Amino acid sequence: MPTITQLDTLDVRFPTSRELDGSDAMNPDPDYSAAYVVLRTDDPGGPEGHGFAFTIGRGNDVQRAAIQSLEHLVVGRSVTEIIGALGDFARTLTDDSQLRWLGPEKGVVHMAAGAVINAAWDLAAKYAGKPVWQLVSEMSPEQIVDLVDFRYLTDALTRDDALRILRDALPGRAERTERLLADGYPAYTTSAGWLGYSDEKLARLAQHAVAEGFRTIKIKVGRDVEEDVRRVKIARDAIGPDIGLAVDANQRWDVDTAVDWIHRLALAGLAWVEEPTSPDDILGHAEIRRRVAPVPISTGEHGQNRILFKQLLQAGAVDIVQIDAARVAGVNENLAILLLAAKFGVPVVPHAGGVGLCELVQHLAMIDYIAVSGTSTGRAIEYVDHLHEHFRDPVVVSGGRYRAPRAPGFSAEMLPQSLATYTYPTGAAWRTPATGESSKKEYENS
Amino acid sequence: MPTITQLDTLDVRFPTSRELDGSDAMNPDPDYSAAYVVLRTDDPGGPEGHGFAFTIGRGNDVQRAAIQSLEHLVVGRSVTEIIGALGDFARTLTDDSQLRWLGPEKGVVHMAAGAVINAAWDLAAKYAGKPVWQLVSEMSPEQIVDLVDFRYLTDALTRDDALRILRDALPGRAERTERLLADGYPAYTTSAGWLGYSDEKLARLAQHAVAEGFRTIKIKVGRDVEEDVRRVKIARDAIGPDIGLAVDANQRWDVDTAVDWIHRLALAGLAWVEEPTSPDDILGHAEIRRRVAPVPISTGEHGQNRILFKQLLQAGAVDIVQIDAARVAGVNENLAILLLAAKFGVPVVPHAGGVGLCELVQHLAMIDYIAVSGTSTGRAIEYVDHLHEHFRDPVVVSGGRYRAPRAPGFSAEMLPQSLATYTYPTGAAWRTPATGESSKKEYENS
Repeated sequence: MPTITQLDTLDVRFPTSRELDGSDAMNPDPDYSAAYVVLRTDDPGGPEGHGFAFTIGRGNDVQRAAIQSLEHLVVGRSVTEIIGALGDFARTLTDDSQLRWLGPEKGVVHMAAGAVINAAWDLAAKYAGKPVWQLVSEMSPEQIVDLVDFRYLTDALTRDDALRILRDALPGRAERTERLLADGYPAYTTSAGWLGYSDEKLARLAQHAVAEGFRTIKIKVGRDVEEDVRRVKIARDAIGPDIGLAVDANQRWDVDTAVDWIHRLALAGLAWVEEPTSPDDILGHAEIRRRVAPVPISTGEHGQNRILFKQLLQAGAVDIVQIDAARVAGVNENLAILLLAAKFGVPVVPHAGGVGLCELVQHLAMIDYIAVSGTSTGRAIEYVDHLHEHFRDPVVVSGGRYRAPRAPGFSAEMLPQSLATYTYPTGAAWRTPATGESSKKEYENS
Repeated sequence: MPTITQLDTLDVRFPTSRELDGSDAMNPDPDYSAAYVVLRTDDPGGPEGHGFAFTIGRGNDVQRAAIQSLEHLVVGRSVTEIIGALGDFARTLTDDSQLRWLGPEKGVVHMAAGAVINAAWDLAAKYAGKPVWQLVSEMSPEQIVDLVDFRYLTDALTRDDALRILRDALPGRAERTERLLADGYPAYTTSAGWLGYSDEKLARLAQHAVAEGFRTIKIKVGRDVEEDVRRVKIARDAIGPDIGLAVDANQRWDVDTAVDWIHRLALAGLAWVEEPTSPDDILGHAEIRRRVAPVPISTGEHGQNRILFKQLLQAGAVDIVQIDAARVAGVNENLAILLLAAKFGVPVVPHAGGVGLCELVQHLAMIDYIAVSGTSTGRAIEYVDHLHEHFRDPVVVSGGRYRAPRAPGFSAEMLPQSLATYTYPTGAAWRTPATGESSKKEYENS
C-alpha cells in the first residue's frame, strides 16, 4: 500500500511584468507565479500529484510557506486512503484548528489547502487513468456529495438538495460526454483587452479573436471612464454586433461609482460587468445589480470560499458566478459552488488566465456540464493565451472552444525545464533578465 | 531625519495547549502565539515600534513570513513621513498590488499589514510621548478621517458622515478623558468559562469574577447542547440574576442549528450569543438574529476587514460589533469600523485574550469612548488573565475595569526575556517541555 513520502514546494515566477500582458486597473505589473506543490509516494514507477496556488509575484514565497505548513497532514498517509476518500482528505486540510485561525477558510491558508487538495486530485486521477473531469463525471451522485463539505451551507443547500440536482442530471450524462468529446466546451477570450494595449492593438486582437471562433471577448476597464467608453466602442466596432462584449473592472469602484460608470459603458451592450467592486461586498454587488439592471453583473475569481458564494446567490447579487480553480479549497469546494449555482439557477463562467488556471478550471466547467447543471448555455471558460507551453498537458482551444483533455490527471503538471528556469530567484529567467525578456516574447504571440 | 533601518520578525509561541486554558469548541488546543515585528530606526536612543499578529500556533511561521514580505514598503522610509501621515502609510501596506492578490485585504497578508501598521502606531505614540488612545483622542476630526481608507465603504459611510460623528463627539472629550483616567473602562471576563474546565471550577471562577467586580462573564458553548444548558445554569446560579452572562459558540453552528441551540440556551437570559456561525456569513447572522430575537447576536473577532463589518451593519446582522486589534489592518481599519458602528448606532464590545490582544484593544475602546461613540454604555472590553506578565506595559484591570494605560506607545512591547524564552522552536520553553510546563502554571492563576 503506497504512502505519501514527500510534499515538495517550489516558488515559480514568470517575469510577465516586463511586458504589459495581464495589466488591469488593480494589478498594473503582475509577475504570474505559482506556489507549486508535488506529492511524491513510495510507489515505484507510480505517479506524482501536482498542484499550485496562483499568485502575481511578491508573496509567492509566503504562499509556498503556507503550503509547506500542511505537510504534517499529508506526508506519511496512505495513498489509497487519501484518493479513496477525497472528501475526508479535503476536510482534514481545512480543519486543522491552529492553521484555520489564519483564515478561517480564506486567503493564503485556504489557497494552500486548495493547492494540496488539487494535487491529491491530480494523483487520484492519474491512478484512475482518467482526466479529473471524467473521474468526477463518472461518480455516482452519492459519491459526489461525499466530496462536499456542507458546513455553513445548509440554509441554502443541503446534502439532499445536492443529491436531487445530481440525480436530475444523471440521464443526460452519456450524451453530454459524447458531445463534449466531439465539440469541446465554449471559451471566451481576454487576450485582446489588457489596459496596457494601444487602441490599434486592441482592435486588431479583438478581430483576430472573432476570426478564431470566440463568441465573446472581454476587455479591462476601470482606470478612466472616458477612455473606457472609447475602448468599449473600439472593441464593439471591431467585433460587430453579434459577438458578446464583457468588461472587467477588477474591483475598482465603490457602489455609486460602479453604477455611474456602468450606465455610461452599457451603451455598447455588455455581456456582463465583472468585479465592479470589492469581491467581499455581497450587498454592494446586489445593490449595483439592482440599479444597473438589466446589465448582468458577475464576480467570484477572488471569492474566498463557498460561504461567500452562498451569500452572493442568496442576495441575488450576481447574474453569473465566476469560479477560480486555485482560490478556494480545490475541486471539493468548487463542487460545492457548482451545486450552489445550480440550486439557484445561475450560470458558472469560470475565471482563468494567469498561469495554469485554464488548465485546471476546464475540468470543473466540464464536470458542471456533464454532471451538475447539465448545460453549457450561457456559459464559457475564460481563455488567455499565456504560458501554456510550460505544461505537460496544455489546454487545447480551437474554434473558440476548449477541447476536453484526455490525459490522466488534472493538467496541472509543469515541465521540469520550466520549473527549473522560472524558480525564483535562482532560475535562469531571474538570474539573467535579458534571457528572461527574450524568452518572454514567446507568450506575447497574438 | 531618522529612517526605518530594520524590520525584524520573531516567531513567539506559548505552550498554552499543555493546559486547557483557551479551549473552545472550535479550537481545542491553541498555543497562543505572536508573529512579532520590531521596527528599528537610526535615531540614536530613539524608540522602536513593536507590533504583532496573534495566531494559535501552527502557521505562526507563515504569518511571520508574511510580515517579513512587507519589508520593502517600510525599510528605508523616513520616520517623520510615516508617523506624520499614518493614513497614507497604512494604505501603502494594504495596496501593494502583488501582495494584495493573496487576500485581498483578508487573512494572513492582511494580519501582516495590521502588525506592521500597529508597530508604526507604537512608534508614533512613543515619539509623541503618549499612549495611542490619547494620541488619537487628541486629534482633530479632520486628522482622524485622514487615517481612514473609505474605499468600499461610501455606500454606508462617507468621509463627511465620519466627520459629523467625530465633530458631534468633540464637546464631551475632555470630560470623558477625565472620567476614563479616574474610573477606567468596563471589562467583562472569559476566564471562567473555557470548555475544558470542570463544573466546580466553572462555578468557583464565575463567583470569583463577580467578587472581583466584573458585571458580565462569558462562557464557551457549542460542543454538546445538553452539557451547554447545564453549564449555562451552573454559571447563572453562581453569578446570580444581576450579572450579564454571555455565551460564545466559536462558529460551531449552521443557521438552523444555531437557532435551535440558542432557543434552548436562552432560557438562562443571555447578554449575547457570540459567533453562532461562520464569521463570513453576514446573511446567516442576520437570519439567526431575526429568528432568535430579542436574544442579542454578536460577531467580529474573525471579521476579515471593514467591508465585512459594513455589511454586518447594513444587513442588521448583529446587536454587538466585536473588533479585534490584530485581525484587520491595524488602528486605521479599526477606526473605520468604530465609525461604521457609530453610524449604525451599534455598540462595540472588543474581543481580547490570546496574547497581547487585551493590551492593544483597550486603546481602541478608549478612543471609541472619548472621540467616536462618546459612550461606554452597553460596552465592555473582554478580559482574560493570561500572559500579561510578558509585556512591558501590561493591562491593569481592577474592580472589573480596565485602567487607562499611561505609558507612551501601544502597550505592544514584550519583554526581551519573554521573547527569548518563547521563540519557537529554539527558546527555552520549547527546548525543555518540563520547564515550559512548570512556568506555564503561572498563567493559570485564577
